[in-house]
Amino acid sequence: MIKTPQPTAASALSPLCRSIATVSISGTLAEKLAAISAAGFTGVEIFENDLLYFEGSPADVRRMAADHGLAIVLYQPFRDFEGVSAERLARNVERVKRKFEVMHELGADRLLVCSSVAPDAIDNDALAIDQLGQLAQAAAQAGIVTCYEALAWGRNVRTWRHAWKLVDAVNHPNLKLALDSFHTLSLDDTPDAIASIPGNRIGFVQIADAPKMQMDVLEWSRHYRCFPGQGDFALADFTAQVVKSGYQGPLSLEIFNDGFRGAPTAATAADGHRSLLLLEALTHEELAKEKDTTGATLYTPPAAPTHTQWQFLEFAVNADARERVAGLLDKLHFRRAGQHRSKDVTLYRHGSAAIVLNAEPDSFADAFFQRHGLSLCASALRVDDARLALERAAGFGYQPFSGRVGPNERVVPAVQAPDGSLNYFVNEEPGKPTLFEADFALTDVDGPTEVGPITGIDHVSLSLPAGSFDSWVLFLKSVFGLQASAAVLVPDPYGLVRSRALCSVDRGLRVVLNASVDQHTAAAETVRAYHGTGLNHVAFSTGDIFRAVTEFEAAAVPLLRVPANYYDDLEARFAMPTDFLDTLRQHNLLYDRDEKGGEFLHAYTETLDQRFFVELVERRGGYDGYGAPNAAVRLAAQARQRARAAREQAE
Amino acid sequence: MIKTPQPTAASALSPLCRSIATVSISGTLAEKLAAISAAGFTGVEIFENDLLYFEGSPADVRRMAADHGLAIVLYQPFRDFEGVSAERLARNVERVKRKFEVMHELGADRLLVCSSVAPDAIDNDALAIDQLGQLAQAAAQAGIVTCYEALAWGRNVRTWRHAWKLVDAVNHPNLKLALDSFHTLSLDDTPDAIASIPGNRIGFVQIADAPKMQMDVLEWSRHYRCFPGQGDFALADFTAQVVKSGYQGPLSLEIFNDGFRGAPTAATAADGHRSLLLLEALTHEELAKEKDTTGATLYTPPAAPTHTQWQFLEFAVNADARERVAGLLDKLHFRRAGQHRSKDVTLYRHGSAAIVLNAEPDSFADAFFQRHGLSLCASALRVDDARLALERAAGFGYQPFSGRVGPNERVVPAVQAPDGSLNYFVNEEPGKPTLFEADFALTDVDGPTEVGPITGIDHVSLSLPAGSFDSWVLFLKSVFGLQASAAVLVPDPYGLVRSRALCSVDRGLRVVLNASVDQHTAAAETVRAYHGTGLNHVAFSTGDIFRAVTEFEAAAVPLLRVPANYYDDLEARFAMPTDFLDTLRQHNLLYDRDEKGGEFLHAYTETLDQRFFVELVERRGGYDGYGAPNAAVRLAAQARQRARAAREQAE
Repeated sequence: MIKTPQPTAASALSPLCRSIATVSISGTLAEKLAAISAAGFTGVEIFENDLLYFEGSPADVRRMAADHGLAIVLYQPFRDFEGVSAERLARNVERVKRKFEVMHELGADRLLVCSSVAPDAIDNDALAIDQLGQLAQAAAQAGIVTCYEALAWGRNVRTWRHAWKLVDAVNHPNLKLALDSFHTLSLDDTPDAIASIPGNRIGFVQIADAPKMQMDVLEWSRHYRCFPGQGDFALADFTAQVVKSGYQGPLSLEIFNDGFRGAPTAATAADGHRSLLLLEALTHEELAKEKDTTGATLYTPPAAPTHTQWQFLEFAVNADARERVAGLLDKLHFRRAGQHRSKDVTLYRHGSAAIVLNAEPDSFADAFFQRHGLSLCASALRVDDARLALERAAGFGYQPFSGRVGPNERVVPAVQAPDGSLNYFVNEEPGKPTLFEADFALTDVDGPTEVGPITGIDHVSLSLPAGSFDSWVLFLKSVFGLQASAAVLVPDPYGLVRSRALCSVDRGLRVVLNASVDQHTAAAETVRAYHGTGLNHVAFSTGDIFRAVTEFEAAAVPLLRVPANYYDDLEARFAMPTDFLDTLRQHNLLYDRDEKGGEFLHAYTETLDQRFFVELVERRGGYDGYGAPNAAVRLAAQARQRARAAREQAE
Repeated sequence: MIKTPQPTAASALSPLCRSIATVSISGTLAEKLAAISAAGFTGVEIFENDLLYFEGSPADVRRMAADHGLAIVLYQPFRDFEGVSAERLARNVERVKRKFEVMHELGADRLLVCSSVAPDAIDNDALAIDQLGQLAQAAAQAGIVTCYEALAWGRNVRTWRHAWKLVDAVNHPNLKLALDSFHTLSLDDTPDAIASIPGNRIGFVQIADAPKMQMDVLEWSRHYRCFPGQGDFALADFTAQVVKSGYQGPLSLEIFNDGFRGAPTAATAADGHRSLLLLEALTHEELAKEKDTTGATLYTPPAAPTHTQWQFLEFAVNADARERVAGLLDKLHFRRAGQHRSKDVTLYRHGSAAIVLNAEPDSFADAFFQRHGLSLCASALRVDDARLALERAAGFGYQPFSGRVGPNERVVPAVQAPDGSLNYFVNEEPGKPTLFEADFALTDVDGPTEVGPITGIDHVSLSLPAGSFDSWVLFLKSVFGLQASAAVLVPDPYGLVRSRALCSVDRGLRVVLNASVDQHTAAAETVRAYHGTGLNHVAFSTGDIFRAVTEFEAAAVPLLRVPANYYDDLEARFAMPTDFLDTLRQHNLLYDRDEKGGEFLHAYTETLDQRFFVELVERRGGYDGYGAPNAAVRLAAQARQRARAAREQAE
């Protein structure tokens, strides 16, 4: 279907048009433009190489963009303009005029010029001002707005303040300031005074996030940028400054990321768009705190739920798998608490932890089981307002889902997570039947009669294909408002695993994401077993882990064995009473302590179906981590378990 | 099979024992020790975590190592010993005594102590000398030799000179200097005066290479070290200094490499061992140049061939594939030059380029075809002395191969490359029949009657699985003595491709290695098509590329189309006459120019069987590269070709 061509001049843009540079995603130019449009962007930066490699003219690119409803908001074909000899300047002016012609064909009216990086660039502000002035004059004749940006590794100009000083001195309507969050925040430079620049003197704003890294800033920029919300930069602060300046041009993602270059085009573009929405929402919150109203045109979704916790985890099973999972739950002293009123679905409970085993034929769970085998097909999250939570998720572009509902069953709003599993939003209203009461024939209506050692679900840990890691971070941040800790690399005996924990402000919801860097780690094997993303483990919380492991040992729960050397090292690292250490050793318990004295005691079961295992955790004194120093010990023990299983199978 | 336990004390070592740290390879400790022993090492450093995660005692580790004939030459369980308060020192001495006990159990008599990295480490050489003295005294009581090493990111001590100053001042037989090539060469520090240290005061020498990178030295060290010869450090210089000092202890590889952590254990260990052999050989050459004889105990293989060139490329084909390849060769004006005397093998020639198509049933080529389909199953290299070349290759641990030979056929020495393909070594002796004369019924015994535009083989480019990239670098460097240029990242529309060129000193042999970082690049598709390493393309050289492409266009050779925008950009980048540019455009020729004015003109055919293509290259004025700036244009055009083919198949 060919759409009617739209006007593409950037001057026709609405305030804060959302844009992305074509370099940010994979594919041919045609594939990129289609995906960028489908994701919801209205603007695009054409990266010079994408034009160069394209089998058609700049006018063809303009038509193709217009057919997709995209304005070409920027072109950046020029480097090292200023700080040069008079002779070189004359050549540069001639060259830039040729580029202006290309821009006319492209229908782009903004040209980005970065501060010179040439080793011989002359360090003389007066000269730079004069030469940028000549650029502005040439641009005025061509009807182009040039935008001057400080590169963090520029030869002489490295900060936005310096670039602004030059632009301000030139004082010409065809030379404006360009800002890029990466260049400012990578240098730990403050964006604080950006608000004081007149908004109409800012010509363009590029946005990029990045993980904090100790490396050369050029390399960091070229390979590790990511979408807002996926890295560690304080981007809402930065963007609030931009908005307060009165700037009304595009916010444009310019992301150089090695992973994105090989990731699926459409999914990456969609993540880019929702990352801008999330950034706008957070910027709006930032401004609202200051009672500043300049952010009125920013995207504002319903607020993220303030309290979130697991209501239940739902596993897709068949009869065989149900028997194995039910067997483990039984040993962990879960009780069979109810049977679904109309479906082959069983509810197990222990403390506030609830597990649902779904064997209903021809259901979503069934389809999930066909594809992934025994797997976590849905997570139900208890929120303040389920309808608002769904609205928020849908606003960020996640697909709402409606399943088959039987008589008397509650309609539960849900969205699909990046792996296609469901996230239900549940809220219970006073005086009405609970979800479990509505859907299940409960065997213990008034709550548990026995009280076991498990109190609830502490966290859920997922194994992901490497390419979906950042998509999940964005999903959990945007839908649930979770906060992410920095990613860590964990050594498995067969390679490295990237791991990142996210949790809600009140710590009611904790999710750990793992993606293997290498082919043969436990996390990689898990992804293979599930044919995609899958549950790595569920951690149940307990207030008394010694009681819990004692009970579970007696019930023949297969607990993972921890080598004796681990305890010798523990003794060397932490001062602790001998009998305490002995108890840890005796029960294969792992231990960690934080700087404030908070303690973490945890144990693992062996792995079920080569897929997932159960962790038991006791947090003491406000410990807020996940025992990361012990991950390598656990992974080594699991590798031995896998090797043993493989040997037994071979024999 | 259990071997008789060997003495494991390091003092019993022969000079320059070859060792590796267990952290350098993947697997469980048991798997690591088996692989290290099988690779030929006689020493091993036990990394502390490997002991910690092991389900057995230190004495068990000692026995396991001894069963494999391995001495445990070092243990490094201690950090931040010196530069501390008196109270902290007392604790450190107590702790290190416990570690000495573990070392006694392990049978290790060398302890590595790195310079302190603690932010509060006291910067006072006198204090450090005093405290290292106390360490030496404790070590003397335990019969342990402590080795003090400057970490490149140490708090106060960062260079080997500084560490040596402290060790020399302590002046105690139980405190020696430890050297690590990474810590010296990463700082661009010179190893030049190491030779002046008395060799018996050096306690341990660790060796690591690394690619030159602009990044934080700690991160660089922890993730990017590699085996000697795989990186960019001048390690033979460093090692020559060590040897000249009179040091006679282990040379030990301590390689922190993210890729090795996920790579196959045995193959990585084997590469490690041969990388040490190669380093010794190069060090020996270094010393021989100076007429220094201290390197007498170093490994000295037969010299690498001084002149190497392609004799022929041999493709595994069946009847169908032969028809397609022969069709392309025919269009490229290769002539059918001979038929093998006893096998279903045909020879094609054009200029000095020779291609052999092998369809012999039940042969090595047949097995290769079964596994990889149409593929390059062997490369024959013309060398000065084939027997010596084979000896050299076998000495580095590459597998010699003997195939079935018919009557009157020449026995051709060969080794297997890392992908299992063969490398034949051929030398022709005056007055004897050439290989082609011996093996083939030649149709043009006196050489070609017609002279075509192709003069020979310029280079061969391979697509590799990422994990085998560094193995190939080592193979080509050790067997043929090739030199490697720095690796570059090339952007394919669907991801990044790592590429590295190697060539012989006289430029007679050039090989380009490519490994895809991402899943869907052309290089990744090629690896999938071949089920492993495979030919990416063959580049034929010509002295007149305009004549060549004109001829080949007339012969309907399918040449890759280059977008018009490429030529507009070329004009902007290089000053060139309009008619020259027009000729390039007309013939879809790519162009590059080096800083000295050398020129590279090249063109590509479309891809045959979704596997490989042919490049035509003309080098002018000593151009020594491969047109790297044009790789992205070519990859984009190939991506379009693939997409077109996929569309046509779908229709």
